[in-house]
Amino acid sequence: MLKPLDDRIIIETVEKEEKTASGIVLPDSAKEKPQEGRIVAVGTGRVTDGGERIALDVSEGDHVIFSKYAGTEVKYEGKEYLILRQDDVLAIIG
Amino acid sequence: MLKPLDDRIIIETVEKEEKTASGIVLPDSAKEKPQEGRIVAVGTGRVTDGGERIALDVSEGDHVIFSKYAGTEVKYEGKEYLILRQDDVLAIIG
Amino acid sequence: MLKPLDDRIIIETVEKEEKTASGIVLPDSAKEKPQEGRIVAVGTGRVTDGGERIALDVSEGDHVIFSKYAGTEVKYEGKEYLILRQDDVLAIIG
Amino acid sequence: MLKPLDDRIIIETVEKEEKTASGIVLPDSAKEKPQEGRIVAVGTGRVTDGGERIALDVSEGDHVIFSKYAGTEVKYEGKEYLILRQDDVLAIIG
Amino acid sequence: MLKPLDDRIIIETVEKEEKTASGIVLPDSAKEKPQEGRIVAVGTGRVTDGGERIALDVSEGDHVIFSKYAGTEVKYEGKEYLILRQDDVLAIIG
Amino acid sequence: MLKPLDDRIIIETVEKEEKTASGIVLPDSAKEKPQEGRIVAVGTGRVTDGGERIALDVSEGDHVIFSKYAGTEVKYEGKEYLILRQDDVLAIIG
Amino acid sequence: MLKPLDDRIIIETVEKEEKTASGIVLPDSAKEKPQEGRIVAVGTGRVTDGGERIALDVSEGDHVIFSKYAGTEVKYEGKEYLILRQDDVLAIIG
Repeated sequence: MLKPLDDRIIIETVEKEEKTASGIVLPDSAKEKPQEGRIVAVGTGRVTDGGERIALDVSEGDHVIFSKYAGTEVKYEGKEYLILRQDDVLAIIG
Repeated sequence: MLKPLDDRIIIETVEKEEKTASGIVLPDSAKEKPQEGRIVAVGTGRVTDGGERIALDVSEGDHVIFSKYAGTEVKYEGKEYLILRQDDVLAIIG
Repeated sequence: MLKPLDDRIIIETVEKEEKTASGIVLPDSAKEKPQEGRIVAVGTGRVTDGGERIALDVSEGDHVIFSKYAGTEVKYEGKEYLILRQDDVLAIIG
Repeated sequence: MLKPLDDRIIIETVEKEEKTASGIVLPDSAKEKPQEGRIVAVGTGRVTDGGERIALDVSEGDHVIFSKYAGTEVKYEGKEYLILRQDDVLAIIG
Repeated sequence: MLKPLDDRIIIETVEKEEKTASGIVLPDSAKEKPQEGRIVAVGTGRVTDGGERIALDVSEGDHVIFSKYAGTEVKYEGKEYLILRQDDVLAIIG
Repeated sequence: MLKPLDDRIIIETVEKEEKTASGIVLPDSAKEKPQEGRIVAVGTGRVTDGGERIALDVSEGDHVIFSKYAGTEVKYEGKEYLILRQDDVLAIIG
Repeated sequence: MLKPLDDRIIIETVEKEEKTASGIVLPDSAKEKPQEGRIVAVGTGRVTDGGERIALDVSEGDHVIFSKYAGTEVKYEGKEYLILRQDDVLAIIG
């Protein structure tokens, strides 16, 4: 299992088929385009300069939209994941 | 439904016709030009370094002017939205 | 009516004629040149990292000099305004 | 009268003749060159993130050296002034 | 022995063979690619502006994924190591 | 007399002859090269965001090494000085 | 004697022969390469925004690895030294 550090989360990106099902379509424009995925692991949160740890606002299992160009790709036990920071998450699809 | 994170809000951009009605006209100049829209969802606010969450100053339903080039476009259940940060909102049309 | 957010203010820019009357003339030089206007609305102030809101030092009605290239132009109910941050205001003409 | 905001000051730049009198000569080199002037108005000071206002270290009447390329030129009631931040003041000629 | 300072850690990078064993495969794409290794030493943590030392979240012996282009290579007593900051660690393989 | 502001100091640069005497020689390399001088005036220190003034670690009369390209040159009452920030001072020659 | 300010340290760089002895070899790669040396003087530590001085983690006599391109070279009483900040020290060879 992968345990992300700080305010990082691990995302299983959603396949094209599933994406249509959830209703998110990426429009053709010059704006930044989001991507969709499901959170499989969350870090324990960043530590502030005051030494306080800030828990994340997202949880394992959340279906989220995130910045398309964010994060680092990893392949672990045959599956592809993205490791990104919570700040790259735009919204939870609830 | 989309739930934005932190200090992000979700905007339903106002159509050209409605824009004329509200009286906002984008002037022809080299300055940054604003865009108009209605807020459909707001986040819970950013968390400061002191660990305090700052509630947003805008609410669902607010009609706002925002920086034209701000945010990320998403299409959700057939409608287009913009996800942007509250700081990109210039003024509320009250 | 337009209600600016945070530390933003809304300025009604002063016409050329009025500018001569108030005595501000923009000199010909390579330096940054200021512009003149009257404040028609002020925000409630920015919120610090400590969660404290800092009230603005300028008020509705103040006649101010501001950085020429600052802000965003809007046209509202037929009149042109500038939305800028208080930090772009250089001085109050008192 | 012009009232500068925050940590800004208003400077009446010193004429060439007076500059020789005070003994400041700008040397010919590649280094940043200072300029000389007299303070005619000071702001109330910047507000820290803790919400505290920090009074300025310079006062009306101080004869100061400041960074040559700092500030914004204004002409007010026929006289030329510079509006700059206290941090652009290098030293007081006491 | 090498003792890293602050929030730095020392990594023994994992060989290609071992990498296949642990299941991390670097995909072919334009995204940032991670690298794998085992932590052999950790610093005592960075000191915040408040003067508080923040202990690291990783420990000696942790098997971690880190940013590929991070850190400084050193060869010490015949072995190669990487010295990097904890913030360059993306996740612990647990 | 010149009174520097904040964390600024005024340096009387040391002549070539005196430099040889004190033993500082500028080596020929691509690295940043220091310069030598004697402090003739110090500011009262910078004010932190918490509103606290931090006294300087250097004093009038200190013989110091500083970054060669730092500061602003002034000529005052016929002598040349450098005004720079304490942070540009590398070491005191004690 | 040279007394470094703040979080600066003074390093006597280690000769090629001695470097082989301690086992640090600089590998041929595109990564940042470290350099080795012995600390001959340490500053009293930086002062935080809260006004607190943070003592250094390294001491006179420590044998350290540091960023190759960091610091400022000085020659003092016939010997060459490097003045750099503690943050440029990667690890102590203990």
